[in-house]
Amino acid sequence: MKKLPNTKSFVWKKQRLLLLDQRHLPHKTIWLNCQTWKQVAGGIRDMVVRGAPAIGITAAYGLVLAAQSAQFLAPEKARKELEAAFQGLLAARPTAVNLRWALERMRKIWAPELSSPAAAGGGSIMDSPPVTGGNDVKKWTKALEAEAIQIESEDRLANQAMGRFGASLIPATATLMTHCNTGSLATAGLGTAFGVIWTAFHDGKVRKVLASETRPYLQGARLTAYELHKERIPFELITDNMAAHLMNTEKVDAVLVGADRIAANGDTANKIGTYSLAVLAAHHKVPFYVVAPLSTIDLSTPDGQAIPIEERSTDEVTMFRGAPLAPKGIKARHPAFDVTPASLITAIISERGIARPDFRRSLAALFNQKEPLTAAAPAAVS
Amino acid sequence: MKKLPNTKSFVWKKQRLLLLDQRHLPHKTIWLNCQTWKQVAGGIRDMVVRGAPAIGITAAYGLVLAAQSAQFLAPEKARKELEAAFQGLLAARPTAVNLRWALERMRKIWAPELSSPAAAGGGSIMDSPPVTGGNDVKKWTKALEAEAIQIESEDRLANQAMGRFGASLIPATATLMTHCNTGSLATAGLGTAFGVIWTAFHDGKVRKVLASETRPYLQGARLTAYELHKERIPFELITDNMAAHLMNTEKVDAVLVGADRIAANGDTANKIGTYSLAVLAAHHKVPFYVVAPLSTIDLSTPDGQAIPIEERSTDEVTMFRGAPLAPKGIKARHPAFDVTPASLITAIISERGIARPDFRRSLAALFNQKEPLTAAAPAAVS
Repeated sequence: MKKLPNTKSFVWKKQRLLLLDQRHLPHKTIWLNCQTWKQVAGGIRDMVVRGAPAIGITAAYGLVLAAQSAQFLAPEKARKELEAAFQGLLAARPTAVNLRWALERMRKIWAPELSSPAAAGGGSIMDSPPVTGGNDVKKWTKALEAEAIQIESEDRLANQAMGRFGASLIPATATLMTHCNTGSLATAGLGTAFGVIWTAFHDGKVRKVLASETRPYLQGARLTAYELHKERIPFELITDNMAAHLMNTEKVDAVLVGADRIAANGDTANKIGTYSLAVLAAHHKVPFYVVAPLSTIDLSTPDGQAIPIEERSTDEVTMFRGAPLAPKGIKARHPAFDVTPASLITAIISERGIARPDFRRSLAALFNQKEPLTAAAPAAVS
Repeated sequence: MKKLPNTKSFVWKKQRLLLLDQRHLPHKTIWLNCQTWKQVAGGIRDMVVRGAPAIGITAAYGLVLAAQSAQFLAPEKARKELEAAFQGLLAARPTAVNLRWALERMRKIWAPELSSPAAAGGGSIMDSPPVTGGNDVKKWTKALEAEAIQIESEDRLANQAMGRFGASLIPATATLMTHCNTGSLATAGLGTAFGVIWTAFHDGKVRKVLASETRPYLQGARLTAYELHKERIPFELITDNMAAHLMNTEKVDAVLVGADRIAANGDTANKIGTYSLAVLAAHHKVPFYVVAPLSTIDLSTPDGQAIPIEERSTDEVTMFRGAPLAPKGIKARHPAFDVTPASLITAIISERGIARPDFRRSLAALFNQKEPLTAAAPAAVS
């Protein structure tokens, strides 16, 4: 068994959460020390931490910090504090549903009556957490910490399962294209799309990876390049606008991306540029795979139309590290995500198995059974 | 008649050529003073000056500088010097055929026997220059200067004609998408695709322009944004990977791009990312227009396969103004151009008219007649 990557984007330290400030990677390694939920919410909003699964997990730890600072309050006051933290963390970023999923799962502990499965977006497939309720704030705090640790540990295992399922789809000597960052910096473990690449690479199947730089935030150039380099996986960094040319002039065997929210019909919100790659992949007859844990699949979102697309500051488009890339005073756009319609997706790879069209049926089936949908034999990583 | 833009990327000063260093735009205005053809070749190679028509014109002035410094040599020696300058300038960049076109046209003056119409790539549609030949080096020098000035002036007029033809295709309240820079900084005048946008805007037809930043060199963010801003044309700057999302969520009425070389069958080489936009435009049923003067159409290049695609330094991908965008020591790619197949092009707009498929027929027809192919009445710019 190959040693799993040891890159971490956050570390829980019992009474504080360390966040690796990914805005400065790979040039500087700066850890942010969060002691309040507001610091965690700020870190999520300002993209100190990013990646849908990592956002969910760190928000869960944010609630632990909120409980810890409320544990000497009367239960009603503490509950109010926790609700405020819940809403504050939830508002940090709108698109990735893992955030709501993790927060709803945590809320079952202090307010089980508010967390219906529907409210949780149908996303929770794990056994329900120990519903605590009642009025013992200290008990909540302990239970919340245990639950956050559990969410993190489940994500780590889900990554490995997705890696195995996904790798089963990759042909020999493959050239794989990926977008944004979906590795250890975006999750609690191996990553989503990155986990598939990593696993297929250790299966001896990957000739090279084409990693798109992912403007404007350059998660590909800064983070994925860093992780691929560290894991000694052969790759070439490309600008986003080279993808079509390379699909046309080289044999690209698959495009692998993560997701921020998958609707019930399979429509998938992910980092801006994903939809572009999906159209290009379809044109060039390249399989297009979405890799995401069930916490990213939101059966309560009927389709892509219902997914809110975050518009971020256009300074992120017109500036780079304080230096202007464009004339001052101009207008720019910054939709941070786009929606890829289910019709352009070859398969969705989850920790429970591989869902194929019709996704409305196959995604619902993932939630309704404990056994993998597709019996892709999870061979040992060589 | 609206005042034409007064932006200049080069100025001929009789014994020197000033090149605006576009690498520093829009933040700094630095003019390079070229007194030798080698300085001009360096300026073309290092992208001080860029844009297919501008490359051709400045290379022509480079030959004038070569002749001026050779004018006291014996004719045979001067001819050798001019041939060396011809080859040196030709080697500066491989993809844009305007470079060869202008150089071949100039060579008719000192070596008419070397410049067959075939050797000139069939690109010259203008009246042949006064064939001088003979042995009078001073006469060559004068004739070369007159020819370079003529090439520049023809380009300026061609821009205006393309603007009129192109604007006739734009519907009212249009949203237009463009890529790279095709304005005054890339030509001698109004520009190619930019000239169409400018003309349609002054016809009152343009609601807004979506300008892609054009990684890695950011010609869109740095140059097109600068020109659109200066001309008060409403626009939004986007990253290249947003194009598909905006085609899907807003009504985009046309994509307009320039070209570096158009083959006899209509296949078009242009800035990397153009092919991507063409595939996306076809998917979203958005008309895709290539705007280029006949000096860009090379009937001696049968199809896109025969167009050499320049691979530039990957530092241009991994660095920005000396600051790294990615980890050190990684591999990147930098094809500077891509080829859009004729099948994805709605029409090619030239100064002689609008060519539509079958391009093999319609492009050849442009060269065989003096009258515009399409009688788009060139109304006065309001």
